[in-house]
Amino acid sequence: MTTNSSPQLWLYDTTLRDGTQREGLSVSIEDKLRIARRLDQLGIPFIEGGWPGANPKDVQFFWQLQEDPLKQAEIVAFCSTRRPNSTAATEPMLQDILAAGTRWVTIFGKSWDLHVTTSLKTTLEENLAMIRDTIEYLRSQGRRIIYDAEHWFDGYKHNRDYALQTLETAIASGAEWLVLCDTNGGTLPHEISQIVQDVVRVTGELGTGDWGLGTRKDSSQSPIPQIGIHTHNDSEMAVANAIAAVMAGAKMVQGTINGYGERCGNANLCSLIPNLQLKLGYSCITEDQLTQLTEASRFVSEVVNLAPDEHAPFVGLSAFAHKGGIHVSAVERNPLTYEHIQPEQVGNHRRIVISEQSGLSNVLAKARSFGIDLDQLKAEAKQILQRLKDLESEGFQFEAAEASFALLMHEALGGRQKFFEVKGFQVHCDLIEGKETSNALATVKLAVDGKNILEAAEGNGPVAALDAALRKALVNFYPQIATFDLTDYKVRILNGHTGTAAKTRVLVESGNGRQRWTTVGVSTNILEASYQAVVEGLEYGLLLHSQTEAALKAPS
Amino acid sequence: MTTNSSPQLWLYDTTLRDGTQREGLSVSIEDKLRIARRLDQLGIPFIEGGWPGANPKDVQFFWQLQEDPLKQAEIVAFCSTRRPNSTAATEPMLQDILAAGTRWVTIFGKSWDLHVTTSLKTTLEENLAMIRDTIEYLRSQGRRIIYDAEHWFDGYKHNRDYALQTLETAIASGAEWLVLCDTNGGTLPHEISQIVQDVVRVTGELGTGDWGLGTRKDSSQSPIPQIGIHTHNDSEMAVANAIAAVMAGAKMVQGTINGYGERCGNANLCSLIPNLQLKLGYSCITEDQLTQLTEASRFVSEVVNLAPDEHAPFVGLSAFAHKGGIHVSAVERNPLTYEHIQPEQVGNHRRIVISEQSGLSNVLAKARSFGIDLDQLKAEAKQILQRLKDLESEGFQFEAAEASFALLMHEALGGRQKFFEVKGFQVHCDLIEGKETSNALATVKLAVDGKNILEAAEGNGPVAALDAALRKALVNFYPQIATFDLTDYKVRILNGHTGTAAKTRVLVESGNGRQRWTTVGVSTNILEASYQAVVEGLEYGLLLHSQTEAALKAPS
Repeated sequence: MTTNSSPQLWLYDTTLRDGTQREGLSVSIEDKLRIARRLDQLGIPFIEGGWPGANPKDVQFFWQLQEDPLKQAEIVAFCSTRRPNSTAATEPMLQDILAAGTRWVTIFGKSWDLHVTTSLKTTLEENLAMIRDTIEYLRSQGRRIIYDAEHWFDGYKHNRDYALQTLETAIASGAEWLVLCDTNGGTLPHEISQIVQDVVRVTGELGTGDWGLGTRKDSSQSPIPQIGIHTHNDSEMAVANAIAAVMAGAKMVQGTINGYGERCGNANLCSLIPNLQLKLGYSCITEDQLTQLTEASRFVSEVVNLAPDEHAPFVGLSAFAHKGGIHVSAVERNPLTYEHIQPEQVGNHRRIVISEQSGLSNVLAKARSFGIDLDQLKAEAKQILQRLKDLESEGFQFEAAEASFALLMHEALGGRQKFFEVKGFQVHCDLIEGKETSNALATVKLAVDGKNILEAAEGNGPVAALDAALRKALVNFYPQIATFDLTDYKVRILNGHTGTAAKTRVLVESGNGRQRWTTVGVSTNILEASYQAVVEGLEYGLLLHSQTEAALKAPS
Repeated sequence: MTTNSSPQLWLYDTTLRDGTQREGLSVSIEDKLRIARRLDQLGIPFIEGGWPGANPKDVQFFWQLQEDPLKQAEIVAFCSTRRPNSTAATEPMLQDILAAGTRWVTIFGKSWDLHVTTSLKTTLEENLAMIRDTIEYLRSQGRRIIYDAEHWFDGYKHNRDYALQTLETAIASGAEWLVLCDTNGGTLPHEISQIVQDVVRVTGELGTGDWGLGTRKDSSQSPIPQIGIHTHNDSEMAVANAIAAVMAGAKMVQGTINGYGERCGNANLCSLIPNLQLKLGYSCITEDQLTQLTEASRFVSEVVNLAPDEHAPFVGLSAFAHKGGIHVSAVERNPLTYEHIQPEQVGNHRRIVISEQSGLSNVLAKARSFGIDLDQLKAEAKQILQRLKDLESEGFQFEAAEASFALLMHEALGGRQKFFEVKGFQVHCDLIEGKETSNALATVKLAVDGKNILEAAEGNGPVAALDAALRKALVNFYPQIATFDLTDYKVRILNGHTGTAAKTRVLVESGNGRQRWTTVGVSTNILEASYQAVVEGLEYGLLLHSQTEAALKAPS
């Protein structure tokens, strides 16, 4: 429970930079923008967007955010210190950083003497000059600085004096945050605790002039920078290490959604936030934002197209799953007996495994969210539940395909409007080597009001051709289809280990300029699965349109 | 590094009992036996086999182990205390435990007053009697007892006195181990640390008679039982909590392979063992056994049929994967700079990942791993790097498609063997509504040694049909193709937000019964992308085969 007197912590998300280092994860600019806006809603105060200059995609991303900025969060550009034996003012990389137009810049520098000599191949003195020059230059251009001390803990253990000199240099140059990084992820919590305490003590003494730093360059900022923590999960300690650092005095916590990151990942914000806020009484985001955590976690995994970890703490599908028997009745009488927090606090929910009852209440709740009151229709609700279970055992999933779920409910209630009837399709696809592109031709057969229609269309792939043929067949009957748009298309192979005979689940997102909706199809044939989802996407669009028309015609 | 003077810890594996509580995990008796024997080899001293009596499968399992016992490990039967208001001697459940024929039995009992009154619905006094009677009865039948104090930490926080009374009872009745369980997984390391220290202190004082226990029942055992720890991962703290307990004096660590377990899982032995042994200097298993850890982890995931977690600490495929230029050259010069342990210590290995950020040093390192020395061919290496970057900007990704990368290298070096030439394909797919399934027909055109071949095949989807047609066309020339197998198929839509016109990336994994390899294809046409990947999969398989043949023929 956070209150006004709860000590404040600053969250710093690096999903869009360190998170994308995860093997197998790649994102488009559009994906990065969607994630940034979602993190902004979630109340994350600092969002690291990438390293503009190292990557053309990141340059674009920051430009787009200048056009259409985030609401609350500070978007942060990330960059290393300048190269050895040059100057910050003439370093092209730093011009890209300035062009990104952020208020805050995170500069990472070397703390570990070994890295200075073996990776950078320069002198310990020059490394300090690189830190100083880079921070001072960016400060002179009006930027506020977070200093990431790379390999901090290993550096400290090998050469404490030099490691502390790098921090001293960053402080004297005007960094406002010093973030201690366990870059290799090998440190254990008791070491983190001791070392962070030492840093807090030593940097605290800087204010008294003990280190002979004299006057800070800029009196507008707090005289002593605050400490942050950045941990990796190579020892399965990323979350525990971040907590240990906070308990030792760190005020900023860096991590990623779902713990995405290089090798074994970064500190998982989805575990850190509830631990810090619900168990240790720190204030990070509002209670209301905390209830969006589960949804945000799943949203990010959808956007990066990685299956969500069902066993993830706090936000996983199984995190509050209970198996039958005494256990369940006990948890229902007193949730405290078997649950460490209330699942609703993080937007998750209790699941009773193998229990019709819990399923039924889900269906009722879901129906209510589509404006359908099933509470008085228990028999129909049970039917829907059964149909849902049958379909889910075939590989359908309605969590992300709420439009298909709505159609299924209308079907069970006998109210599914027949805008058209599908009769079949054919797809033909040719590739002649040497020709520039392959071509696909689709033929669809439909019936509208008992009238058969046969239409064909081409596309640069079989699904595009199918989509084009369906629209062509329907647009004469439903001109509003011209405003529909296929906005996203995702494919997941369900039981991958049977090779190309595996089942395929396709999710299609459609839009009409105002609303977006998602439909699902499943088949061993990827074209059939795509066809199902595209067809339901068109049907749901027509349903939405007719509902809007009906509402407009109704007497107010 | 463990030495003869390293303090000893006792590992206790509960994969076969608590691990199987994981949603979606189910095992046969045969699976359980295979896992038990593998854990025995790994040097785990205590292996909990199940709850005989609660489950007919577990009864069988213990009988089979009586016929053919483990070599080193103690197999342990698990059971609750007797029911309220009965006697242990007349409790049928305990007869099943005795029939299991193990030397050791783990008895779990309630520590938390709330659970005694709400779950067991009995009195606090009767709960103590249940603990005492059950342990004394099993001791009288010659069993040695591990006492699992369920909900220990929650119980201690709510009613320390009563919680300690339950332990006092277990000690007085002759338990040799007291295992403190964080059953709901909600406790944080600093609490674990304080509470375990308190328990160690209090039970240590028992020897001095402070608690008025009088003489222990059995002087053959150590007068004061040792403390163990059993943690769950609901706060992403299971491993950190177990380590905190060990540092506070616990001598037994309970966990599961890969952290399998109910909800968010149990403490992961694959992370605990290397942390305890390599970082904290405890002795758990031999150094040689430790090098089997990665293989044991993957063996267990194979047997329970769950995909291994590629990002798992220590044992995951990505745990020692390196991206990015400078980074790779540094890690090759001095692994300490970017690796917290030597991967070989746990039987894992370093992997150089080829990706967008690749530098020349990555390409050289990768080439070496395919047995190709590019170090003297800098111009060719630069060419490969350029080709790689071009392909990646088109959406190819070679991180997971090492076989396609190898073909690309052979191509650049002019040594790509032409096993066959692709000339084109056609796919035809029909769906008539009402018919049970859709059908796909593929025609492929190839040339082998200048001879054109046209073949057609059907499949339950277009990719299966293409794969079948290609094999049919090639098997007469390359009979080894009959042993190839398409083992996995993955699809990713690259720029999803342009709908069905988006680019598709397909990864295909193939195998020949001994090796597996992955290839990649990219196109706006999903069928063309699949075709590319399937074709390269066949080509790489033929290349592997010819290399093996050549090696066999070469004079040794």
